[in-house]
Amino acid sequence: MYDPIMFVLPESIDRGQYVTCTYYAEGQTDDLLLRAGSIAIEQTTGTWIPVPRETPEVRRRSVGRVIAVHEIPAYEFELPEEKERRFVFQVAYPFANIGAQIPELLTTVMGNISMSGKIKLLDIEFPEVFTSGFQGPKFGIDGLRKLLDVPKRPLLLGMIKPCTGLSPQDLGELVYELGMGGIDIVKDDELLGDPSFCRVEDRLAKALAAVKEVYGETGKTVLYAVNVTDRPDLMRQKARQCVAAGANSLMVNAHTTGPAALQMLAEDPEINVPLLSHPAFAGTMFESPYSGLSSHLVLGKIQRLAGADIVVYPSSLGKVTILKEREIRISQALKSPLHHLKPVFPTPSAGMHPGLVPVLVANHGLDLVVGAGGGIHGHPQGATAGVRGMLQAIQAVTEGIPLEDAAREHEELAIGLKLWGTGGSGNNRLYELKR
Amino acid sequence: MYDPIMFVLPESIDRGQYVTCTYYAEGQTDDLLLRAGSIAIEQTTGTWIPVPRETPEVRRRSVGRVIAVHEIPAYEFELPEEKERRFVFQVAYPFANIGAQIPELLTTVMGNISMSGKIKLLDIEFPEVFTSGFQGPKFGIDGLRKLLDVPKRPLLLGMIKPCTGLSPQDLGELVYELGMGGIDIVKDDELLGDPSFCRVEDRLAKALAAVKEVYGETGKTVLYAVNVTDRPDLMRQKARQCVAAGANSLMVNAHTTGPAALQMLAEDPEINVPLLSHPAFAGTMFESPYSGLSSHLVLGKIQRLAGADIVVYPSSLGKVTILKEREIRISQALKSPLHHLKPVFPTPSAGMHPGLVPVLVANHGLDLVVGAGGGIHGHPQGATAGVRGMLQAIQAVTEGIPLEDAAREHEELAIGLKLWGTGGSGNNRLYELKR
Repeated sequence: MYDPIMFVLPESIDRGQYVTCTYYAEGQTDDLLLRAGSIAIEQTTGTWIPVPRETPEVRRRSVGRVIAVHEIPAYEFELPEEKERRFVFQVAYPFANIGAQIPELLTTVMGNISMSGKIKLLDIEFPEVFTSGFQGPKFGIDGLRKLLDVPKRPLLLGMIKPCTGLSPQDLGELVYELGMGGIDIVKDDELLGDPSFCRVEDRLAKALAAVKEVYGETGKTVLYAVNVTDRPDLMRQKARQCVAAGANSLMVNAHTTGPAALQMLAEDPEINVPLLSHPAFAGTMFESPYSGLSSHLVLGKIQRLAGADIVVYPSSLGKVTILKEREIRISQALKSPLHHLKPVFPTPSAGMHPGLVPVLVANHGLDLVVGAGGGIHGHPQGATAGVRGMLQAIQAVTEGIPLEDAAREHEELAIGLKLWGTGGSGNNRLYELKR
Repeated sequence: MYDPIMFVLPESIDRGQYVTCTYYAEGQTDDLLLRAGSIAIEQTTGTWIPVPRETPEVRRRSVGRVIAVHEIPAYEFELPEEKERRFVFQVAYPFANIGAQIPELLTTVMGNISMSGKIKLLDIEFPEVFTSGFQGPKFGIDGLRKLLDVPKRPLLLGMIKPCTGLSPQDLGELVYELGMGGIDIVKDDELLGDPSFCRVEDRLAKALAAVKEVYGETGKTVLYAVNVTDRPDLMRQKARQCVAAGANSLMVNAHTTGPAALQMLAEDPEINVPLLSHPAFAGTMFESPYSGLSSHLVLGKIQRLAGADIVVYPSSLGKVTILKEREIRISQALKSPLHHLKPVFPTPSAGMHPGLVPVLVANHGLDLVVGAGGGIHGHPQGATAGVRGMLQAIQAVTEGIPLEDAAREHEELAIGLKLWGTGGSGNNRLYELKR
């Protein structure tokens, strides 16, 4: 019953040939080993009853291996009265079953079991044979720094606000205003797809003209990440057209298109510009503590595998609720060594302002993109001043100068600090109308 | 503060120009209206502070409208002590913001708010201006019935088991065995992508040879849905190659590729075969009662919009846990009138066997695909007999004959009923190893 092909010690398998997953689960059971084992079977060779062709040979080649089962807390003698048992366990899936592609990876590690009660995928460990099938980020942190000629300090990303409803003309003016403040990257709002009042080609033309104007006047390179989110084939067509028209960056709502659609762009030789991944819809897969996947997989590892150069995601300091440890773990998944995959810029966002830069850098280091919308556009002196205030904070923190000292020499920063302080913009701000 | 552009009665807007969403939320607040309102703003024009270009004109064109807010239970005078309040509310989003595409739809209706605590999207009502941008299912229920020449009875879908690890030769033999029993459709397992030991082209060749042989011997048309799940561009290429090689049906793990990738295939004129959507990974988006989207959206409406002809999903009778009402609601989302979109075959699956056919038909009607894997392959007389037993049950139920009467004339059915009975295969079977 406890099949020795399936229940093995981790030392007994060649880890380089397996994708290893760690799960958290809860449920009523009198045998944790069999519950873990049934998942290893369900996600590989088996079904609810034995079937003729599931031979020992098929099992040896393809069955998932249970390599760890840990009850939480770690009872040894007696179980408490409560019926639900909690446990963490690991299953190693043969790489040969999956191949080097994201959709079959997700099918294997969180396919049917995603519909089986309380089970959350906590982590995935990829062998090199898997990641080597992916190109990963084209630019990554070093590539983006070179492109922008910003060797050390955190980058500044400005969101277009209001989110949607703007004309291409308005948008071009905003890009110019942000650019004249010294911004590094401007991104479309995720809600701005390709509406009739602000088509991709129209706003790209206006934005690129603004980018050019800024370069002429200041010598500063500004990336404009145009949102090409759409059905995959239309998205690739749109992306190629944008690049041909001079686009220097693209943005994808990768959780609404699927990560493999982002990968399609990242690995397209015609699309030689940095890609920004937006987190819209991602919470549907990680919000629950009992189901789905951890945020550092959804927003971290999988986005890196797919080839994002910049990943925007919620900061614990901002208007969207997320735990601080989660915010940092996502960063680590994007930047820590991972075979040949380049490190990716984390961009904790939503409710950022100048007073938060010190804690952002404390949490993430200097290899960070600071993303700000309201914290730029809401500056009383306008968006250009808003960018300057943010950059003054970024520069000060990079040089180890306290913000209050820097503010004595920089009016824009002083105004921003006075208005927003140095605390978070509030975990519940999303739910408070500020008018 | 309660902006009259945003808080409106449903009668005051042209519903035909809005996508209307119903949400369930929980949280601490002393103003439910403002919480609903802040979501309507966050998902359209706004951010956490007022910004210059969010003019009254921009708001009028693009802001989401709060058209209903209902506290649950419906307090009128005094709130109880508990701090969390529960409420259902509706927001109407201007179609003009979104356009006729799925990724920007998901971004709008469940984008950033998916990362904002307890909020679940219960329903989406599509105006015709939205659905008219989609082709929908090419075949649907009527088209599939014509293709298979099965005018009335439920169809029978056989899963390939074991899930993965089989050789193309084995798979071809299985298709032949199932076909000789009279099966309508055979599908690949979702875990069988394109592994080196069973490549798509190799197994398609074997399966089509088997299908041809069955047709030659019995005159019965069998569809073989080959799993082409992959990165969208590679998937389309693979799908076109399969169709060119004679494939008569394709299968996609649409929740791992994103629904828009399925739509890409469905609306490709070169891909003129029925498409089967598999539910792997779908639970990551619907399992939580407090976040994500309802299952009848994830597995129902959105799959229909994307153009699936057959949607496989968990049955409450089987090895995967789902509520009976959910199982039926998904069916209704697939089959009830929805503008010009053809009805889709629901395929409640996972743990089905002959004894469950009466309750399946009672729940879903005759326009149903009965999906079975173990319930066919696990038949003591083999897979061909397993198919016959299932079809005997289906035929009996279609003709209003009790199963026990039919079993007196059909050995295969009698054996199946004796082995598996007429009860569910158990909600927790996934977690019970049967060996």
